[in-house]
Amino acid sequence: MKTVAVIGATGAVGSEIVRLLEKRSFPLRTLRCFASPNSLGQHVSFRGEKIPLEVLSKEALANVDLAFFAAGSSVSRKWIPECSARCIDSSSAFRMDEKVPLIIPEINRAVLQKQRLIASPNCSATVLLMPLAPLHRLFQVKRVVAATYQAASGAGARFLQHLYDETRAHLAGESFPSPLPFPYAFNLFPHNSPLRANGYVEEEIKMMEETRKILGDLSIALTATCVRVPVPRAHSIAANVEFKKPFQMEEVLAAIRSMPGLQLFEDRSQNRFPTPTDATGRDEVLCGRFRIDLSQPNTLEFWAVGDQLLKGAALNAVQIGELC
Amino acid sequence: MKTVAVIGATGAVGSEIVRLLEKRSFPLRTLRCFASPNSLGQHVSFRGEKIPLEVLSKEALANVDLAFFAAGSSVSRKWIPECSARCIDSSSAFRMDEKVPLIIPEINRAVLQKQRLIASPNCSATVLLMPLAPLHRLFQVKRVVAATYQAASGAGARFLQHLYDETRAHLAGESFPSPLPFPYAFNLFPHNSPLRANGYVEEEIKMMEETRKILGDLSIALTATCVRVPVPRAHSIAANVEFKKPFQMEEVLAAIRSMPGLQLFEDRSQNRFPTPTDATGRDEVLCGRFRIDLSQPNTLEFWAVGDQLLKGAALNAVQIGELC
Repeated sequence: MKTVAVIGATGAVGSEIVRLLEKRSFPLRTLRCFASPNSLGQHVSFRGEKIPLEVLSKEALANVDLAFFAAGSSVSRKWIPECSARCIDSSSAFRMDEKVPLIIPEINRAVLQKQRLIASPNCSATVLLMPLAPLHRLFQVKRVVAATYQAASGAGARFLQHLYDETRAHLAGESFPSPLPFPYAFNLFPHNSPLRANGYVEEEIKMMEETRKILGDLSIALTATCVRVPVPRAHSIAANVEFKKPFQMEEVLAAIRSMPGLQLFEDRSQNRFPTPTDATGRDEVLCGRFRIDLSQPNTLEFWAVGDQLLKGAALNAVQIGELC
Repeated sequence: MKTVAVIGATGAVGSEIVRLLEKRSFPLRTLRCFASPNSLGQHVSFRGEKIPLEVLSKEALANVDLAFFAAGSSVSRKWIPECSARCIDSSSAFRMDEKVPLIIPEINRAVLQKQRLIASPNCSATVLLMPLAPLHRLFQVKRVVAATYQAASGAGARFLQHLYDETRAHLAGESFPSPLPFPYAFNLFPHNSPLRANGYVEEEIKMMEETRKILGDLSIALTATCVRVPVPRAHSIAANVEFKKPFQMEEVLAAIRSMPGLQLFEDRSQNRFPTPTDATGRDEVLCGRFRIDLSQPNTLEFWAVGDQLLKGAALNAVQIGELC
């Protein structure tokens, strides 16, 4: 690999991609970093060097071999068609395009061939899928009911900073302007991605559609409630999964234990299960609380927590890059 | 009604009961307040008077006509059998006793007769049941999958203070001793009530058992995941409900709108749904996000938020007292 570009290199996901390219000794000769025009003149640190930030143009992208797009859907939609390099897109722009593979390397790397554009999935879908995929292989998922507990940084670095600032003001008894129509400090709210006519928000639709595409089974029924919580980083999910086939708990735990990128994280004697703090900064998705659902046959309850900026975004994109 | 006693009058629930007895002009001549021995010498304010705190004894309870027990299960288990007054118990001690009615006045007041002991249900069960009960009457609940987002004050006033103190220390970059094996500031965790051999925690079992008892239908299947979030007050629940009968959304919303103590709280054009801050200090349980579950027939998704110290505990107990 010669020249690698990171588009959106100063954002929450893009800056993690740059960090991971260095940490994982990604095979590249030249790194180029792109950001919005108001970042011009600034630099990104990489392998002890200062990489100057550039602004996107067709000419600037001409000599790039591999491009990580991490600047949101509108940038991906505009610039990926202009880019002749192989592109790995962390946005939702092309995920459901039939011709674009949607990849979690531990789950469906076999789908990856010579496609020019590869999509990396939604963060909540990824945290759910890491434990779900090995179980689907064994018992075939019939229906999933999921509820999420999503972190502030999933809405960007600025929103995370707002959580801290508003919480600090709240504790000091001061008022603080909220970007939301209600407080976020010490509060939570149903996910505010656009609401569709059917009553689901887009984040929930992404979980449904991307789960089916990645597991390669359009018969899977899935419903979700997505909620933003006052937690800085790492998304949690309570999942209820009905399988087509019966299962034994030992088979479930064996499958979970042997899944790469996933860690069974619990100590039942101490009532200790994964929390967002445990998952923050870790490559693995943590899971626990596996139990047989008492309310219907062939159904499992579990709890999963993953760093949505790592496995939920930047790490997954870099892993796809390593496969390319 | 002559003499009313509040047992646990300085606790999170008991102090709300005292406040509500005054606010709702509860028909009583004498209020007596009980607390642990280390509260002796202190007072509780009621109707402009200072009520001295007393310590429980068989003699002290002898002349009480109605007793609100809000000091936890062990106190209820010890003292309710010693008390000749009519007792309303907010603890879980006797809730599942066949001879003890478990009452939410808006739902099953008909069950209330001349019983000496009446139980008030679990806070999470109550928040779920307020929207569930009117729908059950119309369409018959078959199965519920619930995920909770429970507030700090559900674990007591001291735990709430800890959330504030730990969060303040975290923002100042200071370490702070946690009563938990992980941070609570900006973190969340699966509910730490005792874990049973089947993998459910007691809070989840309470939701299952109490829902069936209050709706008077032992055929209802229910599963839950309970989670504590860094929110001071008001529990939120994401509920997925399969009914035996088909429903129309207009019928659902009409039933929700006509349920006393429940408020449909949403503005879909603004993507605005109930949050814990909206529900804090309010008598009504707030609900919204009603949508037809795309994953299976006759199934509904909704979101409910209620002040677990009011309708979830103190208000419900006082309402029962008003019926007595």
